[in-house]
Amino acid sequence: MMAQVLDGKALAKDVKDELKTKIQNWVNLGHRAPSLRCIIVGDDPASHTYVRNKIAAAKYVGIDAETIKYDVNMSEVALIEAINALNADDEVDGILVQLPVPQSMDERKVCNTVAPEKDVDGFHIINVGQLSLDMPTIVPATALAVIEMLKRFKIETFGRDAVVVGRSKNVGMPIAMMLHSDKKHDSGLGMDATVTICHRYTPKEKLDFYCRNADIIVTATGIPSLIKADMVKPGATVIDVGITRVTDEVGNTKLVGDVDYEEVKKIAGAITPVPGGVGPMTVAMLMHNTFQAAQNLRDKNLQ
Amino acid sequence: MMAQVLDGKALAKDVKDELKTKIQNWVNLGHRAPSLRCIIVGDDPASHTYVRNKIAAAKYVGIDAETIKYDVNMSEVALIEAINALNADDEVDGILVQLPVPQSMDERKVCNTVAPEKDVDGFHIINVGQLSLDMPTIVPATALAVIEMLKRFKIETFGRDAVVVGRSKNVGMPIAMMLHSDKKHDSGLGMDATVTICHRYTPKEKLDFYCRNADIIVTATGIPSLIKADMVKPGATVIDVGITRVTDEVGNTKLVGDVDYEEVKKIAGAITPVPGGVGPMTVAMLMHNTFQAAQNLRDKNLQ
Repeated sequence: MMAQVLDGKALAKDVKDELKTKIQNWVNLGHRAPSLRCIIVGDDPASHTYVRNKIAAAKYVGIDAETIKYDVNMSEVALIEAINALNADDEVDGILVQLPVPQSMDERKVCNTVAPEKDVDGFHIINVGQLSLDMPTIVPATALAVIEMLKRFKIETFGRDAVVVGRSKNVGMPIAMMLHSDKKHDSGLGMDATVTICHRYTPKEKLDFYCRNADIIVTATGIPSLIKADMVKPGATVIDVGITRVTDEVGNTKLVGDVDYEEVKKIAGAITPVPGGVGPMTVAMLMHNTFQAAQNLRDKNLQ
Repeated sequence: MMAQVLDGKALAKDVKDELKTKIQNWVNLGHRAPSLRCIIVGDDPASHTYVRNKIAAAKYVGIDAETIKYDVNMSEVALIEAINALNADDEVDGILVQLPVPQSMDERKVCNTVAPEKDVDGFHIINVGQLSLDMPTIVPATALAVIEMLKRFKIETFGRDAVVVGRSKNVGMPIAMMLHSDKKHDSGLGMDATVTICHRYTPKEKLDFYCRNADIIVTATGIPSLIKADMVKPGATVIDVGITRVTDEVGNTKLVGDVDYEEVKKIAGAITPVPGGVGPMTVAMLMHNTFQAAQNLRDKNLQ
C-alpha cells in the first residue's frame, strides 16, 4: 500500500479556480477587482522568482497585482513611507513586503508598518495576536496552506496526535496554534489535535519518539531527509513544508523537502510531494488572503 | 524519596522583598512610586477577594494601588471611557480589569482598550502577539509565575520534554509558548523545551502517554486529581496551576489543584502545593509587571 499523494499543485488549481469564480462574482456585483501590491527591495533572484509567481497567480484569479521594486540601498524610512502611502490608498487591498528585507532594516518594524487589515502575509503583530487567541484573522499563507490541505483532503485532526517539527514564527508556530485550536473559539477552526512542537534542541531519539506516535507530522525545517520511514507510524499523514535545493554527484540540482519521500510514502497513509505539495498551495492561499483583505476593507468602509 | 516541595508562598515573599528594594531604589532616584489601578465591575465575591489580595501585595512592595469599583449595570461604553481616562493619565502605570466582566460586555474589547504598555495582565492583543513572537512584552501573571518558578528553582528545560495540560489563552497557551522559546529570539527567555499541549479532547490514554514521558508537567485545568501518580515519570517536575474548591463528606471545603498531591509527591522530583504554589507567585508577578510598566512608561516619556 503506497500513501495517497496529496497533490498540492492540482489542489492549488482548484482553489484558484474557485477564487476566480468568486472574484468574478464580486466584480459583477459592482466592486472593483481586489488589488495586491508586492514590494521587493533589492536584487535577490529567489525573491524575484517568488514575487513573479505571486503576480502570475494573482492575474490568473483576477486580482489586480503590481510589483513595486526598490533599490537595495533604499532607507528603512523611505520603505516605511512607501508602505504608509499604500496603507492610505483605498484602491489597494493587500500589501506584501517580500522577505528578507535588506539587513539595514528592522524586519519586525517593516512587518508592523503594513496596516493589519491589508497584511496578506499575516505577519503584523496584531494578526499574530489574533491567530494566537484563535480569533478570525489573516493567517500566514504557508501555515494556512497546510491547514487547508488537511481540510480539503479530509485528514481527521480531532483528538489526534500531531507533531510540528520546526518552531519558526511564520510557519511552525502558527501551524501548531491552529492544530490545537478549540472549536469553542471565535475562529471556528476547531481542529482539536494534541500537538507537540519539536525543534533543533529536541534530541534525535525524542524526535523519533514523537513522530512515531503521530497521526499527523508537519515538518518545516529545511533539513533534507530529516524524516525517515522508521520515524513514521503506518498510515500517518506527512506534510512536508521544507524546500531545499540540493546538488547530486553529477552536478544536477533539484528541490527536496524534509522527508525521505520515496521510503516514507511506502509507510505513510498520505504524503505531500516536494515540489508540488505545500508550495503551490501557499501561493493559492496568498490569493485567498488578498480577496479576504478586499472584503475586509469593503466591510470597514461600510461601517 | 519525597519530591522537593516548590514553596510558592516563600518564593513569592522573596520576589516581593526584592521588588520592594528595587522600588525603594527607584523612588530614591526621584521617580514617583509605581501606580496600579484595579477596576472591578460588579459584586462577585471571589473577584473582590482577588483584587484585595493584589492591592495588599502592591502596598507591601511600595506600589501606589487603588481599587476602582463600578456597579454591575455599568455600560461597556462607560467602562471603556473609564479605561481610556486611565490610559491618558501619566500618573497611572498599570491598569487591570478584574475578569470576568459582566456578560453584557465584550471581554476581548475591554482587554484591548487598556493601553498595551499599561496592560499588567498581558491580555492586550499586542502583548499576546509579542509573546507569541518571542519578543519582550508583558506576560500574563499566572504564566509568568510558572516560568519564574522553573527558573528560580533551577529546573532544567533545555532539550527536556514538557507537557502543558490545558490550552487556555491566558494560562496554558502562553506557558507552552515560553517553554518552547528559542534562545536566539529577542525575549532572551530561550527555554528550548520540546512541548506538547494537551486539552479536553486529548484521549485519556494519550494524556497518560505524554505525561509519563515528560520531565516537566504543567497542569491548568481545574479538574481535581486529574494527574495521578501512575502518570508521572519518577523525578519529574509537576507544576499545578489548577485551583478548585471542593467539599468533603462532612461539609468542610478546601482548595485543591489538578494533581493527586499526596501520591504524586512520592514519585515526582519536585512539586508545587495547592494552595501555596503558583497562586502566591501569580500575585507577586503581577507586581513585577506593574513595576515593569512603570519603567516602560518612563522610557516612553523619555523618547
